[in-house]
This record gives sequence, structure tokens and C-alpha cells, in this order.
Amino acid sequence: MRSLMLGKSRIEALSDGVFAITMTLLVLKLEVPEVMHHSSNEQMLQQLLALGPAFATYVVTFLIAGGFWFLHHLTFHFIRHVNGVLVWINLIFLMLVALLPFSAGLMSHLLIHPVSQLFYIGNQLAIAALLNIHWLYAKGSGLLDAADSRQMSLLTLRIGVTAAAFAASLATSVFLPAWSWVPLPVVLLGGVIVEARRKETET
Amino acid sequence: MRSLMLGKSRIEALSDGVFAITMTLLVLKLEVPEVMHHSSNEQMLQQLLALGPAFATYVVTFLIAGGFWFLHHLTFHFIRHVNGVLVWINLIFLMLVALLPFSAGLMSHLLIHPVSQLFYIGNQLAIAALLNIHWLYAKGSGLLDAADSRQMSLLTLRIGVTAAAFAASLATSVFLPAWSWVPLPVVLLGGVIVEARRKETET
Amino acid sequence: MRSLMLGKSRIEALSDGVFAITMTLLVLKLEVPEVMHHSSNEQMLQQLLALGPAFATYVVTFLIAGGFWFLHHLTFHFIRHVNGVLVWINLIFLMLVALLPFSAGLMSHLLIHPVSQLFYIGNQLAIAALLNIHWLYAKGSGLLDAADSRQMSLLTLRIGVTAAAFAASLATSVFLPAWSWVPLPVVLLGGVIVEARRKETET
Amino acid sequence: MRSLMLGKSRIEALSDGVFAITMTLLVLKLEVPEVMHHSSNEQMLQQLLALGPAFATYVVTFLIAGGFWFLHHLTFHFIRHVNGVLVWINLIFLMLVALLPFSAGLMSHLLIHPVSQLFYIGNQLAIAALLNIHWLYAKGSGLLDAADSRQMSLLTLRIGVTAAAFAASLATSVFLPAWSWVPLPVVLLGGVIVEARRKETET
Repeated sequence: MRSLMLGKSRIEALSDGVFAITMTLLVLKLEVPEVMHHSSNEQMLQQLLALGPAFATYVVTFLIAGGFWFLHHLTFHFIRHVNGVLVWINLIFLMLVALLPFSAGLMSHLLIHPVSQLFYIGNQLAIAALLNIHWLYAKGSGLLDAADSRQMSLLTLRIGVTAAAFAASLATSVFLPAWSWVPLPVVLLGGVIVEARRKETET
Repeated sequence: MRSLMLGKSRIEALSDGVFAITMTLLVLKLEVPEVMHHSSNEQMLQQLLALGPAFATYVVTFLIAGGFWFLHHLTFHFIRHVNGVLVWINLIFLMLVALLPFSAGLMSHLLIHPVSQLFYIGNQLAIAALLNIHWLYAKGSGLLDAADSRQMSLLTLRIGVTAAAFAASLATSVFLPAWSWVPLPVVLLGGVIVEARRKETET
Repeated sequence: MRSLMLGKSRIEALSDGVFAITMTLLVLKLEVPEVMHHSSNEQMLQQLLALGPAFATYVVTFLIAGGFWFLHHLTFHFIRHVNGVLVWINLIFLMLVALLPFSAGLMSHLLIHPVSQLFYIGNQLAIAALLNIHWLYAKGSGLLDAADSRQMSLLTLRIGVTAAAFAASLATSVFLPAWSWVPLPVVLLGGVIVEARRKETET
Repeated sequence: MRSLMLGKSRIEALSDGVFAITMTLLVLKLEVPEVMHHSSNEQMLQQLLALGPAFATYVVTFLIAGGFWFLHHLTFHFIRHVNGVLVWINLIFLMLVALLPFSAGLMSHLLIHPVSQLFYIGNQLAIAALLNIHWLYAKGSGLLDAADSRQMSLLTLRIGVTAAAFAASLATSVFLPAWSWVPLPVVLLGGVIVEARRKETET
């Protein structure tokens, strides 16, 4: 069976489904405050504002998950066939994606707690690591279309930089917990600049 | 990567997934009354009728979400390719759509409360605004098929009118809370009439 | 826009999504008994058996929903194009489908209560009615492929018989509550026999 | 209608949807401990570690479900058309798949309890049995593509071995509860070895 070449449409459909459900389930962590019934406008606003950390976690997690979906989408733009090993790598990848509502719940309840931060960032790093394995395996096993190699090496760079950004976040959250959200945007911005320069050089 | 032209099938699949889940999760706000077990028929009917506001919110939110899905579907009828910027606009759009079960929960629990009304209508307006950005960006960036331009300008009108209707609703809910549900059907009806006249003129 | 002919793939995708989520959410009504932790084997079996009505509701509702999905699937086998009216009929159809977890929850908590039975069967009847409207509209508006007309009239019969079966169930549940589950299998069986005879006659 | 040959794309879409939702709903059984708010790091780690059995159930159930999805995917690689009987076999198969979050919840709450083990393994065995019926019916009814018969008999072997592994698990869980997790990996490993030898013989 190992030599059987499968189409990619169904693993894409399963992945889109898991991403869509995961991203939509994040909203279930935002509970409508039950006590607000007969409260005044000001009390109610304050109670909504008290949901602030949960909202921030919703927005950040939704966009990070969206980013992972986009990178996954880009890899399948180049992948032509799927084999059993790639399916199993993807299933483990999806298992880590589906864990996000739990990690996000841990974050929003316990915003600055070191252990919840480690768990949340660790989950993201594990997703990024699996995405690298997925892409490197697909590239190394001849499952790709004969496509534009410059575009493909840019994607390799992007996926690698994403993993590096979360690794830096994790390291910071261990040694400098208060700064743990700095590395992600910094490294991503660095990646964008490197990518732009590389484009310039090549033209 | 920015110059890479992606197919539209996977962003459509993710969008259909998020819409389907969001619309189906709305039903979770309708709780089966647990106290009804040994109650008489009349008590039970009264308890079901007490769920009236929650049912109304379910129906209205489901149909509004369905309308947004339809407009989104219509834009992709004309869109041929997708690029990174359009993907990110869509992810933010979907993030606001996935927030609807929370807004709907706020509405049905606190039916005439000004703050919950503002939040609910604000959520809808934000979705309509993103849909306009999505459509105007796609039109301005050459991502469309060379299609029937009359149909396309009708769609531009429709999407604009939808945003205007929710903006009018929001303004009314601030100044005349009791009338906040009037502008939506009025403006939509006006849009239908304008559209019909325009069709007549052109033929 | 009314004259715009849309493809059918996205309304199919939204429908498949709503059906899949609705059918899977039914399981959330089956709660793991929390008290069972240190109980003996016999106590535990008894507690699982106490979930019997909830299991029966799960199986029956899943299969009825599956049957509606199959009929919906069959109609789209013959539909070639979709217009705005058909989209809106489908959205109302899906709104009633997405209500099933609530109706099923009402059923399994209050198994023989007349009001919950009326609500549950009424929900199914409303779904069947919308399916008829959907199919008759599609047939009457030239949205179908020029297909095998014998197959199409068999489908018309099937969809009509399904609605009749639920109408008979509803009437029975009003006048003879204890017999309300008899009409459904009887009418469906009658439909199968009529269909078989018709096939014979035509060959 | 029985002689109507349907496309396979919609039953695949419904199946992918049910699998994606089932696998993602498993995470809802992992509850964020609410008591952790003001606890120390060590207390928090201990509380996360207390979720260990629930995590193990999440990982094992996600991967088993993923394996069933893969086998189902492989069967549809060879299936060309779908008829009414196959649709109903698939709906019963999906009904058993959608039950997994309940079985998994039973497992993780009551880890070594014989009744919960029997229920969990029984659910898996029922899924495997339906998959065999699905495949044997499709093969026996001429719904397959004229495809590579060696690949097809390997798939028959795989699906049969999977059912045998769960049957052995179930038997062990009755007579030797403490060893109930041994047969699954042993039989699967045996299947891999047999498959490898068969491949050798044929080349």
C-alpha cells in the first residue's frame, strides 16, 4: 500500500474541517456573563471589559491558527500526491491543532501564569515543528509538483522562521516571562525583511 | 510569495466550514429547560414560550449569517485567484463571523439591554465592513474574472447597502434604542427597489 | 442579480457542513455520568442503561437526519444551477436542520411528554415541508439538468411520502400519543411498496 | 431509485465533516482546571499532570479515529459510484464514529473500569465491523473502478486485520482486563509484517 499515490483533496478537506472547527470552538471560551441581567449599563460594560484577556486570547489564537492554516495551504499548493507517511504526519499535526482550544482556555483563565504560558507556546511550537516535518518530508519524497523552485525555497524559509519565532518565544517565557510575546512579532518582521531583500537580490 | 496566485477552493472550504459551524453552534444557546421533567403540559408550554427571545435571536442571527454567507459566495463567483492579502482579510472576516454565537448569546439573555444591542449590531457591522474591504480589494487588485460588469456593480451596491443598513441600526440603537430594528429591513427594502429600478433603466 | 446562475458546489458544501455538525453535536446530549467513579460494575451498567432513552433518541435522530441528507443529496444530483431564491429556501431548510440537537435534547429528557413529542415531530415535519418546497421550486424554475424523468418523479414521490409520514406522526401524537411512532415506518414501508410496483409496471 | 448511480463527492464530504468534528470535539473532554487561579507553579503542574489519563485518551482516540478515516479514504480511492445501500451503510458507520467523544469521555473519567473499557473497545470494534461491511459490499456490487487488484486485496487484508485487532482487544478486556491494550499493537504489527512478506513474494 506504501507505493499507492493518493489524491490530496480528502486530506485537504479533513484539514480544512479541523481548522474551521478549532477556530470556531475558540469562541466557546467566551462565556456570556450570567449575572448581568438586571445590572446597569456601566456595570455591564465593566463586566464585558473583564472579558478583555479572554478576547485578546481569542483574537491572537484565531490569527495564529489562521496563519498555520495559510502555511499548510501553501505547502499543498506544491504537493501533488499524498502517501501513507504524509497522511500520518498530517494527522499528528491536526491533533496538535485541535488542542488549541484547550491551550487557549488555559491562557485566558490564567493570563500571566508561567505554566499556562509554557503550555500555550509549547503547543504552537509543536504545530510549527510538525509543519516543518510535513514540508521537508514532502519535498524529500518526490511528492511535489515540478514547480517554481524560488517560491518553494521562500516557503521553506517561512515555515522555518515560524518555528524559530515560537522557539524564541518559549525560551523567553522560561527566562523572561514578562517579555514572552516580544520574539514572535520581532522574528516574523525579521523574516519579512529577509524575504524582501532576497527578492531584490534575485531580480 | 506575494506574487503567488493561489486557487480559491481552500479559502472557500474554510469559509464554508466556519459559517456552517457558527450557524449550527447558535442552537447551543437554546437550553432544554431541566426543570420540566414532571411538570404539566401547560407548565411545559409556558417554559418553552419563555425561550421565545432565544428562539427569535436564533432565527434572526441564522438568517443574517446566511445572508453574509450568500454575499461572500457571490464575491467568490467573480474572484478567480487569491493572494496573501486577500487570505488575511478573509481570516479577519471569519474571526468576526465566528464571534456571532457569543453576540447572539448576549442578545438572547439580555434582550433589550442597550450594551448587548450595541455589541450585537456592532459585530454585524464589523462583518459587513470587512466584506466591503474584501470585495473592494479583490476588485482593485485584478483578482477577478473578466465578468459581466453590470452584475459586479450590482454586487458592489448590495454589499455597500448591507453595511449602510447595519450602520443605521447601530446609530438608532444609540439614540433611539426602541427603534433599533427598524433601519435594517427599511434600508434593505430600499436597496431592493433601487436595484429593480436600475435594472429597468438598463434594459 | 436574480438572473445570475450560480454553481451548486458551495451550497452543497454549506449543507454538508451543517448536516455533519448537527449529526455530530447530537452526541453531546449523551452525558458521561459523573457519579460513576467508584461505583461497582453493576451500578455502572445500570447507570449506562439509564441512558437508554438518550441513546435511542441519538440513533433515531441521527438516522432521520441522515435520511434527510440523502434526499437533499438526491435533489442536487438533478439540480444544475442555483439562484437566489433557492439559496434562501436552503438556508431556512438548514436552520430547521440545525435545530435538531435542541429537539432531540427535549425528546431524550422528557421521553413520553406530549409537548416534547409535538415539538420533535413538528421539527421533522417542517424539515420535510421545506425539502418539498426546495424540490418543487427547483423543478418549476428550470434549474434542473435534462435528466431521466422517471427517476425524477420517483424522487418527487419519495419526498412527498416523507412529509406525509411525519404529518401522520404529528396527527397521531396529538390524538393517540402512545402510537405516535407507528405511522413513520408504516408510511415509509408503504412508499417502498408503491415504488417497487411502479417500477414493475414501467418495465 | 435503487439503480441510480450517484457521485461519491458528497458522501466523502459528509464523512470528512463528521470525522473532523468528532476528532476536534474530543478536546472538549479536556477541561481547564478552574481551581488553578491563584495556585503556585508546582500546584498547577500537578493539576495538569492529573489530566494525564484524559490526555492519553485524547491522543489514542484521535489517532485511532485518524486511522479509520485513512482506511475509509483508501476504500473510496477505489470506489467509483455510490448507491442507496452504500449510503446507508456509511450513515450507520458515521453514527458509530460520532459516538467516539462519548466513549472517550467514559474512558478518561473511569480509566481502568471494566465496563468503560468494554464500551470504548466495543465502539471501536463496531466501527471496524461496519468498515468491513462497507468495503465488502462495495466490492461485491460492482461499485469499484477496474483498479489494481493487488492493492485492493491488500486493503481487504488491512481492514480485516483492524477488526481482528479490536476483537482480540475486546476479548482480552473481558478475561484479562489489565492486558487489554496489548492485542491492538501486536496484531497491527503482525499485519504489517504479513503485508511486507506478501509484497516480497509477489515481486
